[in-house]
Amino acid sequence: RYGEVELEDLIGVVTGLAWTEVGGELLSIEAVSMPGKGVFTHTGKLGDVMQESISAARSYVRARSVNFGIKPSVFEKRDIHVHVPEGATPKDGPSAGVTMCTAIVSVLTGIPVRKDVAMTGEITLRGRVLPIGGLKEKLLAALRGGLKTVIIPKDNEKDLADIPDNVKRGLTILPVSTVDEVLSNALTAPFSPIEWEAEQQPVTMAKPEPSEEEVGVVTH
Amino acid sequence: RYGEVELEDLIGVVTGLAWTEVGGELLSIEAVSMPGKGVFTHTGKLGDVMQESISAARSYVRARSVNFGIKPSVFEKRDIHVHVPEGATPKDGPSAGVTMCTAIVSVLTGIPVRKDVAMTGEITLRGRVLPIGGLKEKLLAALRGGLKTVIIPKDNEKDLADIPDNVKRGLTILPVSTVDEVLSNALTAPFSPIEWEAEQQPVTMAKPEPSEEEVGVVTH
Amino acid sequence: RYGEVELEDLIGVVTGLAWTEVGGELLSIEAVSMPGKGVFTHTGKLGDVMQESISAARSYVRARSVNFGIKPSVFEKRDIHVHVPEGATPKDGPSAGVTMCTAIVSVLTGIPVRKDVAMTGEITLRGRVLPIGGLKEKLLAALRGGLKTVIIPKDNEKDLADIPDNVKRGLTILPVSTVDEVLSNALTAPFSPIEWEAEQQPVTMAKPEPSEEEVGVVTH
Amino acid sequence: RYGEVELEDLIGVVTGLAWTEVGGELLSIEAVSMPGKGVFTHTGKLGDVMQESISAARSYVRARSVNFGIKPSVFEKRDIHVHVPEGATPKDGPSAGVTMCTAIVSVLTGIPVRKDVAMTGEITLRGRVLPIGGLKEKLLAALRGGLKTVIIPKDNEKDLADIPDNVKRGLTILPVSTVDEVLSNALTAPFSPIEWEAEQQPVTMAKPEPSEEEVGVVTH
Amino acid sequence: RYGEVELEDLIGVVTGLAWTEVGGELLSIEAVSMPGKGVFTHTGKLGDVMQESISAARSYVRARSVNFGIKPSVFEKRDIHVHVPEGATPKDGPSAGVTMCTAIVSVLTGIPVRKDVAMTGEITLRGRVLPIGGLKEKLLAALRGGLKTVIIPKDNEKDLADIPDNVKRGLTILPVSTVDEVLSNALTAPFSPIEWEAEQQPVTMAKPEPSEEEVGVVTH
Amino acid sequence: RYGEVELEDLIGVVTGLAWTEVGGELLSIEAVSMPGKGVFTHTGKLGDVMQESISAARSYVRARSVNFGIKPSVFEKRDIHVHVPEGATPKDGPSAGVTMCTAIVSVLTGIPVRKDVAMTGEITLRGRVLPIGGLKEKLLAALRGGLKTVIIPKDNEKDLADIPDNVKRGLTILPVSTVDEVLSNALTAPFSPIEWEAEQQPVTMAKPEPSEEEVGVVTH
Ligand SMILES: [Ca+2]
Ligand SMILES: [Ca+2]
Ligand SMILES: [Ca+2]
Ligand SMILES: [Ca+2]
Ligand SMILES: [Ca+2]
Ligand SMILES: [Ca+2]
Ligand SMILES: [Ca+2]
Ligand SMILES: [Ca+2]
Ligand SMILES: [Ca+2]
Ligand SMILES: [Ca+2]
Ligand SMILES: [Ca+2]
Ligand SMILES: [Ca+2]
Repeated sequence: RYGEVELEDLIGVVTGLAWTEVGGELLSIEAVSMPGKGVFTHTGKLGDVMQESISAARSYVRARSVNFGIKPSVFEKRDIHVHVPEGATPKDGPSAGVTMCTAIVSVLTGIPVRKDVAMTGEITLRGRVLPIGGLKEKLLAALRGGLKTVIIPKDNEKDLADIPDNVKRGLTILPVSTVDEVLSNALTAPFSPIEWEAEQQPVTMAKPEPSEEEVGVVTH
Repeated sequence: RYGEVELEDLIGVVTGLAWTEVGGELLSIEAVSMPGKGVFTHTGKLGDVMQESISAARSYVRARSVNFGIKPSVFEKRDIHVHVPEGATPKDGPSAGVTMCTAIVSVLTGIPVRKDVAMTGEITLRGRVLPIGGLKEKLLAALRGGLKTVIIPKDNEKDLADIPDNVKRGLTILPVSTVDEVLSNALTAPFSPIEWEAEQQPVTMAKPEPSEEEVGVVTH
Repeated sequence: RYGEVELEDLIGVVTGLAWTEVGGELLSIEAVSMPGKGVFTHTGKLGDVMQESISAARSYVRARSVNFGIKPSVFEKRDIHVHVPEGATPKDGPSAGVTMCTAIVSVLTGIPVRKDVAMTGEITLRGRVLPIGGLKEKLLAALRGGLKTVIIPKDNEKDLADIPDNVKRGLTILPVSTVDEVLSNALTAPFSPIEWEAEQQPVTMAKPEPSEEEVGVVTH
Repeated sequence: RYGEVELEDLIGVVTGLAWTEVGGELLSIEAVSMPGKGVFTHTGKLGDVMQESISAARSYVRARSVNFGIKPSVFEKRDIHVHVPEGATPKDGPSAGVTMCTAIVSVLTGIPVRKDVAMTGEITLRGRVLPIGGLKEKLLAALRGGLKTVIIPKDNEKDLADIPDNVKRGLTILPVSTVDEVLSNALTAPFSPIEWEAEQQPVTMAKPEPSEEEVGVVTH
Repeated sequence: RYGEVELEDLIGVVTGLAWTEVGGELLSIEAVSMPGKGVFTHTGKLGDVMQESISAARSYVRARSVNFGIKPSVFEKRDIHVHVPEGATPKDGPSAGVTMCTAIVSVLTGIPVRKDVAMTGEITLRGRVLPIGGLKEKLLAALRGGLKTVIIPKDNEKDLADIPDNVKRGLTILPVSTVDEVLSNALTAPFSPIEWEAEQQPVTMAKPEPSEEEVGVVTH
Repeated sequence: RYGEVELEDLIGVVTGLAWTEVGGELLSIEAVSMPGKGVFTHTGKLGDVMQESISAARSYVRARSVNFGIKPSVFEKRDIHVHVPEGATPKDGPSAGVTMCTAIVSVLTGIPVRKDVAMTGEITLRGRVLPIGGLKEKLLAALRGGLKTVIIPKDNEKDLADIPDNVKRGLTILPVSTVDEVLSNALTAPFSPIEWEAEQQPVTMAKPEPSEEEVGVVTH
């Protein structure tokens, strides 16, 4: 039944968490990719902020694609479509950033997403996870929907004090500060970084092996 | 006469069901394809949600095209036009998703659609069928229009309790949860899946032979 | 004088019938074609519905072009411009569909349109002719303008009971249900269907020689 | 001084006549052409109807270009810019159609426009000249501005009864019904029609030698 | 300090004069060019009329580029950006036409603009300079800002009677009627007209050597 | 924690200063670049003026790219995305110009930005830094966020009299008048200017080694 936990680990399908006037609810993000020319489509009555959120998620994945084992040329040779059901319900806000990012990485790497993981968090272009609103309602929705693990922004950790104990007992809550942490917890398999000869790239912008504690694109 | 059952099984012509203020009515969806460059056009005074619904239907078919026996390159070499008469009547909503999907598959495979089948249901990008509103009015319109079979979303099965017995006796009602079920019931012939060398495709996103009980794009 | 019957059979010029607040009037549709890249332009202060009507007319002609003796490649090598004088008068509605269709076929085949024929009717993408409003006013305008024959939708035949006898005596009224009937009555010469090798076309969508019980575009 | 008769016959500069709340006035239409890719630009705070009027003028010239001695390929290899000073004054309406048409033909053929000719008239896509409003005010503006000849639509001939005698004595008024008549009276030299092998053109749409009494694109 | 005379003759930087509710002020127009594909960008919160003014300035330069020593191909191989600081201040009106034109010619020829020259005037597509408003306020701003020479439209010469004597004594005021006069007074060096084989150009539109007294594109 | 000083010198990440109704705050500007076709994207709910500000920053960098050691062809072979978190907060105004410029130069040269530097200032297309509002609030925000150095426009130097002494003691305040000064203070390494054969460039617009009295972009 729609709005509950998936039956299997799926490619390109990620469970987000939305915050509406009547409480939290599950938000299924679906991505498919197909042979094409790099066209990027999104549907689901998405507001401007959520559309920009998808755009940033896509650029984040493109700029670091080799780390994920995705050839940069894929972004010119395949089209991607991201859809957020239900089609008649308006959706907006930046908090689905991590979900969009995970869906795009999953569909382009072919690595399925853990079916019992939900997530919420704004992303920045360098891969930081920013805090969101409605944490309590979102956690309740996750519990209600049968999810086991919820990834939340580190900066929302302080809000956990207000969450009922039964909710905290029923869910594994993972506070994260980077998209990398989101992906390593949400995907069912690790990446296989690739080498890429970027002769058209005059300078190195992203380092192939990010060090332990760093976030985003960093230089020492 | 327009608004009644077709006289023959047609390619690219599918009977949907709309729900208006004055009751349900038949909604004929027409698709044609022609040599071109992959341009996709839709007409019929369609609202934003219905336009997105067509976009999602198209991407669903593209992402799984080999399963349907459609070469991916078709989407770059042919233009598709979907029209919903009557041209002066505004139409909107996501519930024509299955109808759009069936029309596109029919016109690209050349397999005709059963003339006595009507359908209603929102689709998601991975091929799930979501519930719709106005089931009673839509079934009445189908009966009145001379249709024999109506495909409805599985999640609307519970609403059948409210449907008058004579309606249920006069129609074969098929609750489905996936687009695959819609297509196998609506088209007059089965698909012939093809092999496709996708050298530009770094990862497998869609499996050629979907297993029995799964929905959408799934990985084990 | 503008607004009256033409003096000669012209290519690309068709007389439609409009229905305004102050009665019916003749609506001259003009199409020209020129070497180009497939750009399609329309002018004449046309509303959204009439613009979609032209779009559908164009796709109908493209999808069946070989039947009309028009090479599909023409739609990539020639530009078409459809204009509806007078430029300052807003026009809208779907009832000029048959007129648009006839103008496009005429200009691309080079077959002139009978100067004494007027027409009205919405078209669908598979070539059906749907009923229109204002039949009486339109017929009066045709009579006043000196036209001899008026093509109307079959579904408007029932409205002829309300038309004054002198109007019916002064005009040959042809009720039709398909665009093919419109064309065969409006053009001064028959088509010369052509063969076309569509190697990029994986499935047959439109058959060159429509057999009796065919699927697809039907004209019975 | 701007708003008065030109000192010399110019290429691409034509004097139109506008009708404003405070009377008629001269409207200088300027066209330039330059090496490019067929881009068409217009400036001068032009309303939608006047923009469509320019579009129709351009298509008319394109569709009949060989008659004017203009190679069809020019429309893909040169850009055209039409400007209507003064830039801060809004302008609209279809009555500058003949002026736009003359400016485009002049700039593409290199034939100058007679400096003492003003004109007004809507055009249709097949080259007919339709009636306009404000004839009296426009003629007064032409007289005041020092023009000698004014080209007006044939259908406005009846309005000449209301024009003061001194105006009619001071101007040569030429009523015309086709764009061809406009051009032959406004340009300082005749055209040199060319031959053009249009292998991509399946049918003949425009006849090279228009007969005496016909208007627009005609077939016998 | 911004809003005062430049310290040096610069390429692509021209001082215009704006007229606001609180008086006149200097308006610095900046143009840069870079390797590209002919993209033309403008920024500075410019209104529609000023945007069209830039468009006309660009076409004027393109249509006469050989006279200025600019290869026509430059317009396809370089991008141009025109900016009017300050970015948060809305600007509009046609009176910066001559300034835009001078900036574009300067940046494409590499000829610097005299640092002590300010200018105001609408341009037309054939190079005429039309009158502007606010002459007094603009001249005061020029004087205040330390400029020495102000180029104004010939048709504004009559307004000089209202200008205080100290202003007229402090400035060299140059009334002009053509853009050529603007450029010869504002640039620090003369042009080097070039020859250009325009095989794609069927007719001569602009004469290489403009005669003394003519304005715009003229033919004898 | 977001809104405070970075932990490391990062590539493409620059700290700007915004002025809101409730005081100043840090504004992190993030830029990434990726293999592409020169597409430029910006997100973060940016208003028109800030969008134009990014456009001007980009053109400034393009027009002087060789000075920065950036090949001009990079702008056709790489896509750039600039994002300003937080995604749901509307942002506008020209004062982030220097920040945008620094982010773009950093991401294209690979030179990291000093983590303890914040900046504010409008830029012009020739590299001047124009004054901004809210200096006091911005400096307070910088101090609060742990920044050490703040780059401000030279024209705001006069406003320093109003700044509390403890703020001035806690920060190194650098007034600048050109973008070059901004970059040399904000980046962790100097540029390596390159030679570039611009055969398509008919005139020299930017000189590689700026001499004393040069024309064009000036930095005295
Ligand atoms: Ca729901
Ligand atoms: Ca959200
Ligand atoms: Ca109906
Ligand atoms: Ca619906
Ligand atoms: Ca009329
Ligand atoms: Ca109509
Ligand atoms: Ca005036
Ligand atoms: Ca007019
Ligand atoms: Ca100011
Ligand atoms: Ca101005
Ligand atoms: Ca904040
Ligand atoms: Ca700002």
